[in-house]
Amino acid sequence: MGNVIWYIVCLLGVLCHQVCKAEDGSQLWLRYARVTTNEAALRKIHCPYHDAVASTAAVELQDYWRQGDVDLQLNKKWPKRQPDGYRIRSLGSKTVISAGNSTGLLYGAFHLLRLQQQGAALHGLDISEKPSYELRMLNHWDNLDGTVERGYAGHSLWKWEELPGVISPRYREYARANASIGINAVVLNNVNASPLILRGDYLEKVKTLADIFRPYGIRVFLSINFSAPALLGNLPDSDPLRPAVAGWWKDKADEIYRLIPDFGGFLVKANSEGQPGPQDYGRTHADGANMLAAALRPHRGLVLWRAFVYNPSAEDRAKQAYQEFVPLDGQFDDNVILQIKNGPIDFQPREPFNPLFGAMPRTSQMVEFQITQEYLGFSNHLVYLAPLFKETLDAQTYFRPEAGTVAGITQRGPHPISAIAGVANIGEDRNWCGHHFAQANWYAFGRLAWNTDLSSDSLAREWLSMTFSPDPTLVNPLSELMVKSREAVVNYMMPLGLHHIFAFEHHYGPQPWGDIPGGRPDWMPWYYHNADSLGIGFDRTATGSNAVAQYRSPLREQFGQIGSCPDQYLLWFHHVPWNHRMKNGRSLWDNLCYTYQLGVDQVRNFQREWDSLERKMDAQRFKEVQSKLKIQARDAVWWRDACLLYFQTFSKMPIPAALERPVHELDELKKIRLDLKHHN
Amino acid sequence: MGNVIWYIVCLLGVLCHQVCKAEDGSQLWLRYARVTTNEAALRKIHCPYHDAVASTAAVELQDYWRQGDVDLQLNKKWPKRQPDGYRIRSLGSKTVISAGNSTGLLYGAFHLLRLQQQGAALHGLDISEKPSYELRMLNHWDNLDGTVERGYAGHSLWKWEELPGVISPRYREYARANASIGINAVVLNNVNASPLILRGDYLEKVKTLADIFRPYGIRVFLSINFSAPALLGNLPDSDPLRPAVAGWWKDKADEIYRLIPDFGGFLVKANSEGQPGPQDYGRTHADGANMLAAALRPHRGLVLWRAFVYNPSAEDRAKQAYQEFVPLDGQFDDNVILQIKNGPIDFQPREPFNPLFGAMPRTSQMVEFQITQEYLGFSNHLVYLAPLFKETLDAQTYFRPEAGTVAGITQRGPHPISAIAGVANIGEDRNWCGHHFAQANWYAFGRLAWNTDLSSDSLAREWLSMTFSPDPTLVNPLSELMVKSREAVVNYMMPLGLHHIFAFEHHYGPQPWGDIPGGRPDWMPWYYHNADSLGIGFDRTATGSNAVAQYRSPLREQFGQIGSCPDQYLLWFHHVPWNHRMKNGRSLWDNLCYTYQLGVDQVRNFQREWDSLERKMDAQRFKEVQSKLKIQARDAVWWRDACLLYFQTFSKMPIPAALERPVHELDELKKIRLDLKHHN
Repeated sequence: MGNVIWYIVCLLGVLCHQVCKAEDGSQLWLRYARVTTNEAALRKIHCPYHDAVASTAAVELQDYWRQGDVDLQLNKKWPKRQPDGYRIRSLGSKTVISAGNSTGLLYGAFHLLRLQQQGAALHGLDISEKPSYELRMLNHWDNLDGTVERGYAGHSLWKWEELPGVISPRYREYARANASIGINAVVLNNVNASPLILRGDYLEKVKTLADIFRPYGIRVFLSINFSAPALLGNLPDSDPLRPAVAGWWKDKADEIYRLIPDFGGFLVKANSEGQPGPQDYGRTHADGANMLAAALRPHRGLVLWRAFVYNPSAEDRAKQAYQEFVPLDGQFDDNVILQIKNGPIDFQPREPFNPLFGAMPRTSQMVEFQITQEYLGFSNHLVYLAPLFKETLDAQTYFRPEAGTVAGITQRGPHPISAIAGVANIGEDRNWCGHHFAQANWYAFGRLAWNTDLSSDSLAREWLSMTFSPDPTLVNPLSELMVKSREAVVNYMMPLGLHHIFAFEHHYGPQPWGDIPGGRPDWMPWYYHNADSLGIGFDRTATGSNAVAQYRSPLREQFGQIGSCPDQYLLWFHHVPWNHRMKNGRSLWDNLCYTYQLGVDQVRNFQREWDSLERKMDAQRFKEVQSKLKIQARDAVWWRDACLLYFQTFSKMPIPAALERPVHELDELKKIRLDLKHHN
Repeated sequence: MGNVIWYIVCLLGVLCHQVCKAEDGSQLWLRYARVTTNEAALRKIHCPYHDAVASTAAVELQDYWRQGDVDLQLNKKWPKRQPDGYRIRSLGSKTVISAGNSTGLLYGAFHLLRLQQQGAALHGLDISEKPSYELRMLNHWDNLDGTVERGYAGHSLWKWEELPGVISPRYREYARANASIGINAVVLNNVNASPLILRGDYLEKVKTLADIFRPYGIRVFLSINFSAPALLGNLPDSDPLRPAVAGWWKDKADEIYRLIPDFGGFLVKANSEGQPGPQDYGRTHADGANMLAAALRPHRGLVLWRAFVYNPSAEDRAKQAYQEFVPLDGQFDDNVILQIKNGPIDFQPREPFNPLFGAMPRTSQMVEFQITQEYLGFSNHLVYLAPLFKETLDAQTYFRPEAGTVAGITQRGPHPISAIAGVANIGEDRNWCGHHFAQANWYAFGRLAWNTDLSSDSLAREWLSMTFSPDPTLVNPLSELMVKSREAVVNYMMPLGLHHIFAFEHHYGPQPWGDIPGGRPDWMPWYYHNADSLGIGFDRTATGSNAVAQYRSPLREQFGQIGSCPDQYLLWFHHVPWNHRMKNGRSLWDNLCYTYQLGVDQVRNFQREWDSLERKMDAQRFKEVQSKLKIQARDAVWWRDACLLYFQTFSKMPIPAALERPVHELDELKKIRLDLKHHN
């Protein structure tokens, strides 16, 4: 009888263990097993500091570190401009983490746990780390009604209606995940901002989140609505040069800092896509930004002013931000940073870098990436974005003899603070990001914000080791798959420099034929592809919009000549004849056809690779990713057929005989109307 | 001014020519250009006979022959058992067609025109032809309300509500097309017959059609409802042994023959799928058939009695027709022919031949093929059926030392008349058959009914030459494509002997999981595939239903042993373990996977081949077939995914790593409900 009970107890134990081990992706890359009491007794975590952040570091090690003693040490001689750096050294069997501040200790602790999780050798360590950017920031495009603009992982994490009374456990989990990859700043709300976020009751909610995030070294920022003084403060307008407006902002800043002493500052989308801004009153972006900067300066707060502005004018949309902002160089206060999207249009699968980078030497500039996959298949497509981030960061602007890359320009600007932002892909889905592999983009953004020199491949391996398994027979093929995945999506969506030929508004599927009579031309696919009987592409050379002139020599010459322009930007800068002979000897049309098919084949290969790894992981994540890859494979065929069949109505040329044929009718594809909104 | 008018006249002429040349498929394979008056003057068609059929032959040559004089000659010494045969000889520049009857002259005329259309050399001809079967018959499953059961080319050609007053020009076109390939008998109405067809007013309509068909050598038959005496004649029942019933049929036959002296006879579906029959009164099929035969005998009419009977009993459906009919051998009158479907189930993509063939040496037997693609993708899939027809006709039954094939058994039965039937694929669609290539199945059926020795390849070439162009750069690749197409559909639908796993009732897509609680087991896919954790397939050996014993040695031994059973019938006769090693060294499961993918690849290759021929044909037919091939390619992937994902839930084995992966979810596929009926 006793044996039977014992057997049942054991069975329950095993079952419980299995259930606990269920892999739903909710643990992200932090899949450490907690140490047992016995294991804990074998080593000592020594932390003589009692501030919140140092305590977090100590608790994290206490709970998960199993490899010998660890000492946490603050070093008062730490260089001032490397506040979050740290050093990890093995001293005999003991490991010492030293840093200039508690956040450095926290990052050191997570580094150590990351090594343990990857199965790395943990003796003889001597690692020194310092961040590439001081401000490593997520921008949430979350609305106060719980929707997320361009969010594909469910509704917002922030339960505004429950706050400040009810605290979701996910707030802390979110902060911990960010801290583990070095993210130290978050903008909580959408850049298309409701003024309500600045009302007293909402600030109480924001304060609650800030209090939860603080022990993880994370500061909170808010997107503001430039009309808030009028809308919220009952002022006659929100003219930045009206003293009462400036005063309202000063009072509001003081109110915020009373609640949140380490509040980060404001992110502003002004005079862009219908948002209010200083130009509504005949003022410049600098007037607007500096007015806010003045309100925040006493508290060491920052203004992150977005450069994403364009109007439906005769001017090429790609040129407008440059034309708007370059003349303002030198006019922004030193606690203003210009936040610039990586490319000159809008987060396309591929864009050349934004020519604003480097073109304003007296202005602090930062990159804004989009981690959420607005233009990259939402959370249905497996697209690893590190290669896209790296492509921009590593791009040479030629504005400086040294450190002239976008990374260099944004890391060593004229003012003390350097920053980088990524639009978050996080929602309330159990796996946070909708697609398990979308977690890798959150991860890679954070890690690259910490160190832009890391390679896409090494980050993929790191993430895979932690998130799935360090088994090289899994890590090798999957890291290769991940690194190829961004090029695959470019291939099946818009190769050779094509851009913005998505379905209107929701941006999910293809709609190169898209047109809305009376709609803004700069929101229409034909504006971008310009397909006609002669050829395809946007002439941005001197014979066209001459956007190429915004790039510094030798880029303007390289991009401007059809012979020297890289294939990947060809149709971005040139209107190219269908029969133009490209470098590989094939015509433009044939290359389009081959490249779309290549994209399809790549996704099919991803499926094959994934399926071959079934036994190397848990069933749930295997199945969920497998399902998403099926959608991606179908979508790739959809993209190929839609684009080739539509462009063929202009080229009148056959799809090369060796290639797989379309399986859709153009007319049927044109009828597809997806019931998708631009938020969920 | 005169020049301008001349120019306009010429332009109109050219335009008119273009419009006339528009290829909508309505001309079928009869795309002869009519001779001009000038051309006609250059040669003489000599026909001294003035009966309707001989006149048709003369007119056809008069209108279309352009190669010298032709003499039509009836030969009184022509062998009696070759009534429709003919001889074509070149005598100097003249061509002589001789025959035993006018129909022979007509067929000879069409033969000559066929040679001309194919661009053959037309001198030194000496061709002798005689038909394989005396009765070469189409069965229309057309209902009196204008729908067609299992019809995929629009509604019925027969406009019953307009007849006899209004005569569609298509009646004559239909007869001409049939005559051109040797078809000489048509059953006008569905085997699930309305009794109304025998009512006086309908017989007047039938007479009108018979009168139109007669000059083309075509006799009309009708499907009858066995309960007609009760339903139409107000008799208490339709018991075949009740003298009043026999009398009613005798009177009805007399009535019909007064209207239609060459009326062919009755086609009967009795005691099958709910149809009434002699068993309703405890009588046998022979009792029923012979009663009708007696009514028709004075008029030399025939009874075509269908052997397609089965009941939802414990007995294997595949065995039931044999069990029912073999004991009746010798009991059928000599103007009764047993009409037997090619396989023992129901027109599947592949079945072994029906074991009834040869098993009733004292009974006339005929084959019934299905030309309409009930189980072969409707009119969406390009499937050339000559290889399927040939597979049955050429099958060796081992019931006779010589002429033991199904063709031999049915051509040389115990009674004078031999016959073959095909269920028509013809509707009111402008191109007659829905799919341009479905015309080839009508064509090939007719030509094989004339001569079962013709090869699938030569028939494909003949049809292509006439229907598209004799250009060998078109005929060579397309004939190869056609000949492969039936194997392709087997591969992507149900390879290795799988059968009847179609969606319920409409039979279009896959539904191997199909089940209707309380429904007839013998209509459920699981009844046929028997998939379980051990394996898949229907055990029809001695350990199972032993249907294999209905085949004569050595077939029963060959089919009955898993090692000697041909792969193509493996799962028809055996329940085979998933890991069974097949002849190619691969497991059964792997072979299933490879074969489904092969089918998908084959269709993709058909698309590629087709697209490469765009410049060799008219735009309309090119585009229409291209569109259908797209559907076929999508459907092939649908079939592959549905079957492999469903069967995988039993096999628990992975799809081999080298293969393309499924792009659908099984759960999604199970939700597909097509709004298709079994008639249109």
